Amino acid sequence: MEVAIMLFDEFETLDVFGPVEVFGRLKNDYKIKFYSLSGGDISNSHGVTIFTKKLEEIKAGADIFLITGGYGTRTEVNNVALLNAILEISEWSKYVLTVCTGSALLAKTGLLDFKNATTNKIAFDWVITNGNNVNWVRKARWVVDGKYYTSSGVSAGMDMTLNFLKDLHGIVIARQVAQQIEYEWTEDSNNDNFSQEGKT
Amino acid sequence: MEVAIMLFDEFETLDVFGPVEVFGRLKNDYKIKFYSLSGGDISNSHGVTIFTKKLEEIKAGADIFLITGGYGTRTEVNNVALLNAILEISEWSKYVLTVCTGSALLAKTGLLDFKNATTNKIAFDWVITNGNNVNWVRKARWVVDGKYYTSSGVSAGMDMTLNFLKDLHGIVIARQVAQQIEYEWTEDSNNDNFSQEGKT
Repeated sequence: MEVAIMLFDEFETLDVFGPVEVFGRLKNDYKIKFYSLSGGDISNSHGVTIFTKKLEEIKAGADIFLITGGYGTRTEVNNVALLNAILEISEWSKYVLTVCTGSALLAKTGLLDFKNATTNKIAFDWVITNGNNVNWVRKARWVVDGKYYTSSGVSAGMDMTLNFLKDLHGIVIARQVAQQIEYEWTEDSNNDNFSQEGKT
Repeated sequence: MEVAIMLFDEFETLDVFGPVEVFGRLKNDYKIKFYSLSGGDISNSHGVTIFTKKLEEIKAGADIFLITGGYGTRTEVNNVALLNAILEISEWSKYVLTVCTGSALLAKTGLLDFKNATTNKIAFDWVITNGNNVNWVRKARWVVDGKYYTSSGVSAGMDMTLNFLKDLHGIVIARQVAQQIEYEWTEDSNNDNFSQEGKT
């Protein structure tokens, strides 16, 4: 399966590379590719630059479409061309995953309306303004609703991706991956120690 | 302070970008740059490519020299030119950090001799063959000995880097960063749930 990861300037480093590490552990099953609206080099203020293909190359959808978060989302929620691309690709993709404030971009397309979803806990009150009809869940490490997987902030993207592996390959494989990367996986999505932080 | 991160082909994704995320949260204090022996694009089988400068640019040392791990270390422990570069840069650097099997490369230079260090738990028995005089610690999320910080596998690099921030900025700042990235930081380095795994 192809994991198509969507980047934009000022993406959050670990939102991207946490899931990359988890999917990468099953590299015979998952091929990771990076995309952005215009293609080319995409950078963030952590000093990370990644070369991307154009999103239009996957307008017929991807097996797994992963929308990252980061400060860039504050700008991108007003980028109509990007939102249209997200809408089209998400509709045709088999699974759509968001990490952190990436759910703000997906919510803005309307695709999360009347669905359960979560997001970064510190930015929670801002994110939810981008989807008034979404059933936002404050206390959750991640949320699954049909083909949509949304996670809390940054590190939670790894927990969500491990749960995704569990859904597709079973708990044994998912635990094996967590073990290999020596990650203390929060297996219960309701176990969220960060939901009391920030404005509630 | 400059964080000079050393890459090689088949570096482990999260070994690099876990610490990048943690340091990146204090971007006014830390500037991250990527290096490799020959410079240019460095890739791994997760589909990640990063442009690097040549290590010779920092032969006078770095504030923080971070040696990543990954399958590539199996080849690089025999790369004499790389080992010589690591030896020279590490001697002149203020702090030297390794993640996962990156400690095999540092151990091979002799700089960890008679010092305490740790490494990835599944690859433990291979890593220690690269440093017979090192006091290898099996049960540790990370180990600090003077200016040398060595961590266990992959995710443990984040715990080590948070501890590094604690040492330099205090526990309040370190916890704040862990909170921001919604990471369940293992604050006690002796709390290592992975040390019983693999060959012991």
